[in-house]
Amino acid sequence: MNERLKKQIDFIREIDRIKDIIRKSKRFKSDLYENDAEHSWHISVMAVVLFEYSNRKDIDLLRVIKMLLVHDLVEIHAGDYIFYTDKQAEKEQKEKEGAERIFGLLPEDQKMEFKGLWEEFEARVTPEAKYARVLDRLEPIMQNYYNDGSDWVKHKITSGMILDRNSIIKDGSEELWEHVQTMVSEIVRRGIIE
Amino acid sequence: MNERLKKQIDFIREIDRIKDIIRKSKRFKSDLYENDAEHSWHISVMAVVLFEYSNRKDIDLLRVIKMLLVHDLVEIHAGDYIFYTDKQAEKEQKEKEGAERIFGLLPEDQKMEFKGLWEEFEARVTPEAKYARVLDRLEPIMQNYYNDGSDWVKHKITSGMILDRNSIIKDGSEELWEHVQTMVSEIVRRGIIE
Repeated sequence: MNERLKKQIDFIREIDRIKDIIRKSKRFKSDLYENDAEHSWHISVMAVVLFEYSNRKDIDLLRVIKMLLVHDLVEIHAGDYIFYTDKQAEKEQKEKEGAERIFGLLPEDQKMEFKGLWEEFEARVTPEAKYARVLDRLEPIMQNYYNDGSDWVKHKITSGMILDRNSIIKDGSEELWEHVQTMVSEIVRRGIIE
Repeated sequence: MNERLKKQIDFIREIDRIKDIIRKSKRFKSDLYENDAEHSWHISVMAVVLFEYSNRKDIDLLRVIKMLLVHDLVEIHAGDYIFYTDKQAEKEQKEKEGAERIFGLLPEDQKMEFKGLWEEFEARVTPEAKYARVLDRLEPIMQNYYNDGSDWVKHKITSGMILDRNSIIKDGSEELWEHVQTMVSEIVRRGIIE
């Protein structure tokens, strides 16, 4: 086997471990928590289904999906921090190291491409990254909404925190941001969170 | 919420059930069997990483990935048949019904798009479908190879069956087909399967 294919296969085998990274949000139709592979698959499908709600329709959807497919690979080494963490600096440092390690398995040109996708996603400057972020944020909000806010209650999350930390959704989709506000209001109205 | 978004969300919630469909092949780095969501994620990443080995480089990779993301949704109703099944007709009928049910949750235009992607994948006529098939077939072969052929042994699969049923890989990638033949030969040489 040539050296290039060997590196690519080493990467393909190693990323299997993302299936062991358990997230902090429950699935839509189950009491189980989902893992990062399931999450990455789900939001990639959502990116296709909900594309008409992107603020910008002239973006490269393939690039969006590539970002979503690989955005959580850094967690193989860094682990999954709760979204409302107070350890933001530690998280960023660990994820940076995680990116070096996981994407460093690939041949140099692909390492640069994949690391670039992850950095673009994190920086949320390009319209593709802004739309990709919408799906990554929307999924756990929807999951919590359909699970009667159970993980928000568990972690003492308020509606103010949810709306504040997720307002970047509107940079990618005004329409889906409106839908998020409706879901959060309803959970508050039902007395589940403050 | 408008009727269209409601249908899209119903679909997004329902496909969560694909995470309960357990496949017949073990993961790369674990003794666990993977589920259809994990599988669909993994082969979508593989489609990006291994794209240079596609016989045709002028194909639409976004279309390939869309096929891979949704190709197993029919199993929510049909279940996962072992690949070397002798119940091929029953499997096809159940999957056709499964496609109607799952994609039928979407607004009509998206139902047609997603059903079309699934039919294109099944028909394996377009170059996109031929390349998509490569990844879907390659993953379980690699998983078995790195698990010392354990599921092949369990189901009494011979090298002749593997090479016969998977020879369509070469229609999408001559180079990866060569790699498959090497892996199978080695497992035979080691006396694990016939």
